[in-house]
Amino acid sequence: MTRIAVDAMGGDRAPGAVVQGAVLAARELGVEVALVGQQAPIEAELARHSAKSLIEVISASEVVEMCESPSATLRKKDSSMRVAYDWMKQGKVDGIVSAGNSGAMMAIGMFVLGNLPSVDRPAILAVVPSIGKGTVIIDAGANVECKPRHLIQFAVMGSIYAEQVLGISRPKVGILSNGEEEAKGTELTRAASEQLRAGALNYIGYVEGRDIGTGNVDVVVCDGFVGNVALKTMEGTAFFIMKVLKESFQSGLPSRLGYLLSGRSLRQAYARLDYAEYGGAPLLGLNGVAIIAHGGSGPKAIKNAIRVARDTVAHNVNRHISEDLGKIVESSGEKLPKKVWQQIKSRIENFIEKPEPGEKDRNTKGDRES
Amino acid sequence: MTRIAVDAMGGDRAPGAVVQGAVLAARELGVEVALVGQQAPIEAELARHSAKSLIEVISASEVVEMCESPSATLRKKDSSMRVAYDWMKQGKVDGIVSAGNSGAMMAIGMFVLGNLPSVDRPAILAVVPSIGKGTVIIDAGANVECKPRHLIQFAVMGSIYAEQVLGISRPKVGILSNGEEEAKGTELTRAASEQLRAGALNYIGYVEGRDIGTGNVDVVVCDGFVGNVALKTMEGTAFFIMKVLKESFQSGLPSRLGYLLSGRSLRQAYARLDYAEYGGAPLLGLNGVAIIAHGGSGPKAIKNAIRVARDTVAHNVNRHISEDLGKIVESSGEKLPKKVWQQIKSRIENFIEKPEPGEKDRNTKGDRES
Repeated sequence: MTRIAVDAMGGDRAPGAVVQGAVLAARELGVEVALVGQQAPIEAELARHSAKSLIEVISASEVVEMCESPSATLRKKDSSMRVAYDWMKQGKVDGIVSAGNSGAMMAIGMFVLGNLPSVDRPAILAVVPSIGKGTVIIDAGANVECKPRHLIQFAVMGSIYAEQVLGISRPKVGILSNGEEEAKGTELTRAASEQLRAGALNYIGYVEGRDIGTGNVDVVVCDGFVGNVALKTMEGTAFFIMKVLKESFQSGLPSRLGYLLSGRSLRQAYARLDYAEYGGAPLLGLNGVAIIAHGGSGPKAIKNAIRVARDTVAHNVNRHISEDLGKIVESSGEKLPKKVWQQIKSRIENFIEKPEPGEKDRNTKGDRES
Repeated sequence: MTRIAVDAMGGDRAPGAVVQGAVLAARELGVEVALVGQQAPIEAELARHSAKSLIEVISASEVVEMCESPSATLRKKDSSMRVAYDWMKQGKVDGIVSAGNSGAMMAIGMFVLGNLPSVDRPAILAVVPSIGKGTVIIDAGANVECKPRHLIQFAVMGSIYAEQVLGISRPKVGILSNGEEEAKGTELTRAASEQLRAGALNYIGYVEGRDIGTGNVDVVVCDGFVGNVALKTMEGTAFFIMKVLKESFQSGLPSRLGYLLSGRSLRQAYARLDYAEYGGAPLLGLNGVAIIAHGGSGPKAIKNAIRVARDTVAHNVNRHISEDLGKIVESSGEKLPKKVWQQIKSRIENFIEKPEPGEKDRNTKGDRES
């Protein structure tokens, strides 16, 4: 059975909501869940849900605070986040989940696990609601300043995830820009776009903010600054619209009655729009499975983040990224002559340039053997 | 009476929707409207609305295409956009509106009118729906690569607009970033944030995408790439949510009945969320009043863009920007000792650094005397 360690101390509503979400997951998702953190409060919460025998508690004395700098968190060797990563590295669990400090998740993850071969920097992959199976945004916040080859790597990782986990055949990949014309965008997006155009992904060119969620594009590629702005703008807009609609339903008796009658379908619509349903965001590119849940996660969001961890493990996303990049092409269903196939494969491999030695943003630890 | 020239040939639905919007504005908004473009089709449309005597037609033989490069459009000396700008420059109209190529609006505007003193680059100011009087996003798409001083200028212009036109006293100004902590953001946002923090605007620090529309911030400052992504992401999210809700209301008899009962309040909610209600986006920083309407504008959006032009003229936004920057402080309602006041005033003036001579992005024409 897949085994997931959950950082019980991470998130605005930890440990209560985290423990509850872990219990839901253990009962509903067919996974084994372990909670990492301070034993006493975790066990008290487990007792409230009569789940002490259901979930193992892994003791960790320290807590990574939300506002701590990544370097400070690296020094806490017995934090719940660090211990979860250590268990991942030792192969005692298949994946980890935390709703805590996402900068620390990235830093500790790079320190403990290292990156997959040929990946320079892990990226946060978010799946947002859409007409269809969901839209991937990568990078949703991990890397603020990027080079073109990083965007290429994000595109490859995002495409593999959309195909393997979301089940989208030959995902449409686009670079997020301020207009569709090639002349638009920044130096970064233009350079990355040129390389992707020559490559083997199903690259459709620039896409705009308004394409997200329409199904026009399956994988939206951008740097982490822009991705974070887009993702949070979606959240804010959804919140605002729901608030306006709620007010309108409360204005007068006919509206209230109307709401009662439409209730069931409206609740279904809300569920489709509820970001908690989509759970956590994988930190792709690490040599292991780590899922970042929203800081404000409630039990349902934690449960769904555990589901994302389970699916990322089950679909061997990391093996696909590190070894089988060629699959992106094969899975398009086209039968290619072996020679063409080799050419395409080497072209994809060229996408993933080797990082220059001594590069500033390079992970200091070597890649872990897989 | 305020006189507005409208580019009848600009936009996906020109000239039909543009002429209809101009007629609505002339009838409802207490402004004099002139339409610029090819005489025959404009007059045919005017005849359909029995409005030939209501609106003057200014003849212009050429049309700026949506996909044309700014430099190509500059060569069309008899385009409807160019002629509208010429009339603005000659003082024959008080403002102009176009739903056409926004890059051309910017390029021709800088060429014909020049910038206001101390403004390096015009920026697109968009007002989006919010809990409250609306939220300003500046720059919403004009300048992809910015320096810190450009963001400072956008902040000052946005604050003046929010105060004068939207009637928000001492507007809260924030820089759009990927997190609220000072350490977040890019080199650009950190440098601009430090300067704004030392300044006299009501600067509240970094804001996130999810703050837009909540009323937490009145003026969201960003470069034009990020602003465009945020704005279009809002549009896309609103479209997606409305689509999901519409489907939910059509699923079964109780929902349909519910919709009928809630209809009136829902329509009010839709109107609050309808971007067309907010009309056009001023191109602030030009030495004149120019409003960019959405390319897909229908009659209502055109009418509202004309309303934005009228209000921008009526509130003397440009005079405030070029001469009365100090007003930002005075309007806070605080009585300041004259000496403190002078210090603050000179500090604000320092925000608006003079552009370096021979700078690449510098407008080639001199600033027009005002």
